[in-house]
Amino acid sequence: MSMVDPVLQGLVDSLNAAYCLCLDDGRLEEWPEFFVDDCLYQVIARENVDNGLPAAVIYCDSKGMLVDRVVALRQANVFPEHFSRHLISRAVLTGIDGDTVSAEASYAVLQTRNDGETRIYNVGKYVDRLLIKDGLAKLVSRMCVYDTHRIATLLATPI
Amino acid sequence: MSMVDPVLQGLVDSLNAAYCLCLDDGRLEEWPEFFVDDCLYQVIARENVDNGLPAAVIYCDSKGMLVDRVVALRQANVFPEHFSRHLISRAVLTGIDGDTVSAEASYAVLQTRNDGETRIYNVGKYVDRLLIKDGLAKLVSRMCVYDTHRIATLLATPI
Amino acid sequence: MSMVDPVLQGLVDSLNAAYCLCLDDGRLEEWPEFFVDDCLYQVIARENVDNGLPAAVIYCDSKGMLVDRVVALRQANVFPEHFSRHLISRAVLTGIDGDTVSAEASYAVLQTRNDGETRIYNVGKYVDRLLIKDGLAKLVSRMCVYDTHRIATLLATPI
Repeated sequence: MSMVDPVLQGLVDSLNAAYCLCLDDGRLEEWPEFFVDDCLYQVIARENVDNGLPAAVIYCDSKGMLVDRVVALRQANVFPEHFSRHLISRAVLTGIDGDTVSAEASYAVLQTRNDGETRIYNVGKYVDRLLIKDGLAKLVSRMCVYDTHRIATLLATPI
Repeated sequence: MSMVDPVLQGLVDSLNAAYCLCLDDGRLEEWPEFFVDDCLYQVIARENVDNGLPAAVIYCDSKGMLVDRVVALRQANVFPEHFSRHLISRAVLTGIDGDTVSAEASYAVLQTRNDGETRIYNVGKYVDRLLIKDGLAKLVSRMCVYDTHRIATLLATPI
Repeated sequence: MSMVDPVLQGLVDSLNAAYCLCLDDGRLEEWPEFFVDDCLYQVIARENVDNGLPAAVIYCDSKGMLVDRVVALRQANVFPEHFSRHLISRAVLTGIDGDTVSAEASYAVLQTRNDGETRIYNVGKYVDRLLIKDGLAKLVSRMCVYDTHRIATLLATPI
């Protein structure tokens, strides 16, 4: 491997670490702030991506839709109580174009329900485009491409 | 995300990586050396932390207690033979105050018992305070806040 | 922990991240390119390593053998269809000798089969020697020392 800019690498990895901790802490209201206003957030099966089928199980194409989703989670949706715990690998930077970076990182979401046991809930990779501006990184688009195609419960909280 | 000092970030992440490898290699006698003398090490359920209940299942408030714990593990405690394997995410630096850094990092401990299968043993996050001195990082306090509230066996070896 | 060279650390961690993503994406033909020509790749049980028994379940001592292995996987071997997902921790640099670096990193391979569930397939640590040349890192040797001594299916795709 050749060297990548350690500052850029650090910005991407720090965003990912903070994003995952935000979700695992249940600070859902802060989650949309990792995105630019005109963003795209999708959760889509790996089989669909591999076969060129664009149908995503979650599709939000603005920060407003992310905010709406959090409001729905807090006020309307019914799903089992749980803790989530993300593990995420170092990002692979796949492209740099001006102030935009493309990156991919593997993730696993481990879920603990009322019985107290922790199970693998969803694994996959984030396929991202990030905007770097004034020393800040924000997600322009995040596509969560998941391997786990049997999902135990309603895909409620964000991946 | 804005930029954090990459040297500081590296010190924290390298400590975490070495700490986990030390435990997974079974080099328990080296484990107390990751802490300052006047340290605090706790293992506590997330539910307790969320509800302001301070009762920890493990509470050691000096390096001497950590050393004692290792001696007990080697000489007295009875627990199933196992291998452990930690996975840990990049730390999120939550505060810097002089030579002291606050940081949080998600972890998972995967355990392999005699049957040869590997299972999720305990997941959670480390909530840490670290002292940075002469280019060295040591743990002032580590609180292991675990999601997994059904623990399969005696919580023997450290998290 | 004392400071390690952040550029060197980054080269090792970026190689690991790219290696894992390459395998998980199913780009097997690119996998031998992470190694030098005169390389050693082994997959071996932790119990064997601990007891000084050198028998590895996979032993390839040149890049040509890695290429052969990929050809066999594509054309001959029969194994269940699956997705793999590697999670890997930050490397611990255990030695530096001229342009050669020794490093260890914990890994977990999570596998998703046709039923759509994701299970822990194999966990362990990579014990590596890397050559750093012209700002590039390549594997001189990688020993995958696994904890999981009951392996569910043929150990087909590389670890």
